[in-house]
Amino acid sequence: MEDQQTRTSAIMEAIRQRIATRALVSGDRLPSIRQFAKIMQASPSTIVQAYDRLVAEGVIASRQGSGFYVKGRALPPLSLVGANTPAARAVDPFWVSRQSLDSDPTVLKPGCGWLPTDWMPNEALRKAFRTVARGKGNILSDYGSTTGALRLRRLLTSQFSEEGLDISPDQVLLTGSGTQAVDLICRLLVRRGDTVLVDDPCYFNFQALLKAHEIRIVGVPYTATGPDTEAFERIVLQEKPRLYITNSALHNPTGATLSPQTAFRLLSTAAASGVLIVEDDIFADFEIAPSPRLAVMEGLEHVIRIGSFSKTLSASVRCGYIAARKDLIEGLIDLQVATSFGGPSPVITEVIADVLEGGSYRKHMLEIKRRLEKSRKTVIRKLETLGISPWTVPKAGFYLWCRFPDGQDSTDIALRSMADKIIHAPGNVFSVSQSASSFMRFNVTQCEDERVFRSLEMMLT
Amino acid sequence: MEDQQTRTSAIMEAIRQRIATRALVSGDRLPSIRQFAKIMQASPSTIVQAYDRLVAEGVIASRQGSGFYVKGRALPPLSLVGANTPAARAVDPFWVSRQSLDSDPTVLKPGCGWLPTDWMPNEALRKAFRTVARGKGNILSDYGSTTGALRLRRLLTSQFSEEGLDISPDQVLLTGSGTQAVDLICRLLVRRGDTVLVDDPCYFNFQALLKAHEIRIVGVPYTATGPDTEAFERIVLQEKPRLYITNSALHNPTGATLSPQTAFRLLSTAAASGVLIVEDDIFADFEIAPSPRLAVMEGLEHVIRIGSFSKTLSASVRCGYIAARKDLIEGLIDLQVATSFGGPSPVITEVIADVLEGGSYRKHMLEIKRRLEKSRKTVIRKLETLGISPWTVPKAGFYLWCRFPDGQDSTDIALRSMADKIIHAPGNVFSVSQSASSFMRFNVTQCEDERVFRSLEMMLT
Repeated sequence: MEDQQTRTSAIMEAIRQRIATRALVSGDRLPSIRQFAKIMQASPSTIVQAYDRLVAEGVIASRQGSGFYVKGRALPPLSLVGANTPAARAVDPFWVSRQSLDSDPTVLKPGCGWLPTDWMPNEALRKAFRTVARGKGNILSDYGSTTGALRLRRLLTSQFSEEGLDISPDQVLLTGSGTQAVDLICRLLVRRGDTVLVDDPCYFNFQALLKAHEIRIVGVPYTATGPDTEAFERIVLQEKPRLYITNSALHNPTGATLSPQTAFRLLSTAAASGVLIVEDDIFADFEIAPSPRLAVMEGLEHVIRIGSFSKTLSASVRCGYIAARKDLIEGLIDLQVATSFGGPSPVITEVIADVLEGGSYRKHMLEIKRRLEKSRKTVIRKLETLGISPWTVPKAGFYLWCRFPDGQDSTDIALRSMADKIIHAPGNVFSVSQSASSFMRFNVTQCEDERVFRSLEMMLT
Repeated sequence: MEDQQTRTSAIMEAIRQRIATRALVSGDRLPSIRQFAKIMQASPSTIVQAYDRLVAEGVIASRQGSGFYVKGRALPPLSLVGANTPAARAVDPFWVSRQSLDSDPTVLKPGCGWLPTDWMPNEALRKAFRTVARGKGNILSDYGSTTGALRLRRLLTSQFSEEGLDISPDQVLLTGSGTQAVDLICRLLVRRGDTVLVDDPCYFNFQALLKAHEIRIVGVPYTATGPDTEAFERIVLQEKPRLYITNSALHNPTGATLSPQTAFRLLSTAAASGVLIVEDDIFADFEIAPSPRLAVMEGLEHVIRIGSFSKTLSASVRCGYIAARKDLIEGLIDLQVATSFGGPSPVITEVIADVLEGGSYRKHMLEIKRRLEKSRKTVIRKLETLGISPWTVPKAGFYLWCRFPDGQDSTDIALRSMADKIIHAPGNVFSVSQSASSFMRFNVTQCEDERVFRSLEMMLT
């Protein structure tokens, strides 16, 4: 059954390809069933099925008694379809995102922010989808509640409770993704022209997001133990920001971890000035030993905790969360209703809860952490032979924030690497002050192909 | 295997319930395995499993040699969990959304905007999820491309082509939902303080969404053949709006359909003034015969077409789309990257494409249309015996926009119906001018329970 589907799809793709490359144009007659079955080494019934489905799609049409013909203008040439990723645009946060998200599978992506498919818990996901497939109809087709499934919110609060943060599930709002969590928070709390602080360097999409809100972005210099707290205090006094967005554990892009002293000072400044801290905890599950968390130290008075399952569980089964004061959650619910009509998909939240509860997830993450440790070491060694060295050696996770030898510009290297079909994340897309031109963020899990290092070697000599 | 899971979950739920109702409080010892197995008529191994999972969740803890105890503050009482839906707030668009989305299954919802679970194509969805469960790993765990799956975009452009709108798949952007489609468009094209036109009455969440953008909302009086075109022209000249958001086919809430004359006049005014029209086509698949479409008549010069699969296929498998000029799509892609990081979930788009291509979907929709026709007639008859009459008799779909007998206020009726566990959608939540206090929108598919009519009868006498 499945093989038949695959064969039919292959035939359909072959015909689409011919139309896309103009080997077949509008009005052309397709080969006869028998003829095409021979050419494609397929059974006539497969060809019939492929033709029928292309008719249903409006790509071809049948004319009584005279076979099948290519219809007009139904499909654009493939070159047009692929034109969505402008290679020529400025190397900004969007450049990295769009290159990484839209590149074809032959492209290497040491610059991307996720694990390769075969590192993900796909067997657990398959099992969870089978369970959903035979589960209740309302999970399959109904809207989600405005806050998202109670089952998953309970799992989160239990996890928080283990860390020492005791909150109730109604202080947790499930969102479409971690990015949408930050977006909703900005919509609720910040207005155009307000100031928001981020780390310098920080996750590049924070900048893209804040720019979409037309918010003034100010960077706080980042050290190997978290943001520079003196600079933070000074900037808070000067700029009167509404929010400060940061990662506590396994900071993106540096992989650094907040020290308890830094955490305490940040919280003191926040409490004194009324700044709210958005603590993005998306890399939490990669930690070997848990590091200080602002939300755990302080509670949720001046901290909003967000996270998602995209890095560890699945980025296709997408869902994020916000843990915050009840008054903020109330406002966020209304905003999510207005802009998404309800919480995230019941199917998605059910699958995530199934995987988290399934028992194999913990084992999977242990294995991932073991692989990551090995992978980080290997990549550090290989980069160091090229004179590229990590700014700090992260305790866990998959990022390395590395400095290039003197005089090398990472944006220039990223642009030249396109020709080698390699997508890098150059330092300045992470830096508000544009002061990271000699840095590059490497994702160690995406560096398994030797071409990454061979290409860098060529660039550097 | 599955039964075992169900039994374990039932035991867990029973314990949670006891904690929630304070029958068991923090520090209490749980019954012994043997004792509780007897009480629950379950096997000891089921109890062991349930206790183990509750330990993993942090709800209970085991103490060496002395059994299991309830942990502190891990779970709030259920009354708190349910407190998310404030019954006492103003009857505004959020009131209807939150009441409908969050009410428990015993509540009747003639005011909601979707079909009951058993009207949805759940068998086709189950099949599609089984296919996904045995499909490629990248569908299960990778991020989606920035525009969303080409396969689904191709299905959409083929469908458009059948209607006479020939565009290429790179003029289609898949989004998280229909609501997110409107939201992205507003983010791209409208700034705070700008004016946007909607129909009066219109889908209530358009107002909630525009308010979230702090946009000035102006209503265009709606007639049984579409918006009043003279009023539209006058308001466009006066207000210089950036956008006009409307439904062409099966307008929400009235169920009315645009006439070709109205469509032509709207497009002429739009072309002369530069106003962009957002045509929300979410109810398209319910039509018996296709009615005029602005995007088909004009192309995508002044029209942006949006839609989703939430009403006909699944609201859990959520996905929307935007068809627009290529220059607008480019801007929308960046915005979606910034605010959602990538397009909708590959799992979701794969399931939708599978269902649409699966063959059973067309048959399902034919059956739904047949059921709807019958249902509309029955509900109209029952409402008319109460003196409640439809403003227009829709050609298709599931909405009836009805006028109450003289002097009856539908907001008042909606509030009083809460005591009968019935959620209504009173006229004024749809009306910018608040001039629809004698109207109510009924969803005929949610009126199968006689209590809806008995309750209304009591209210009206």
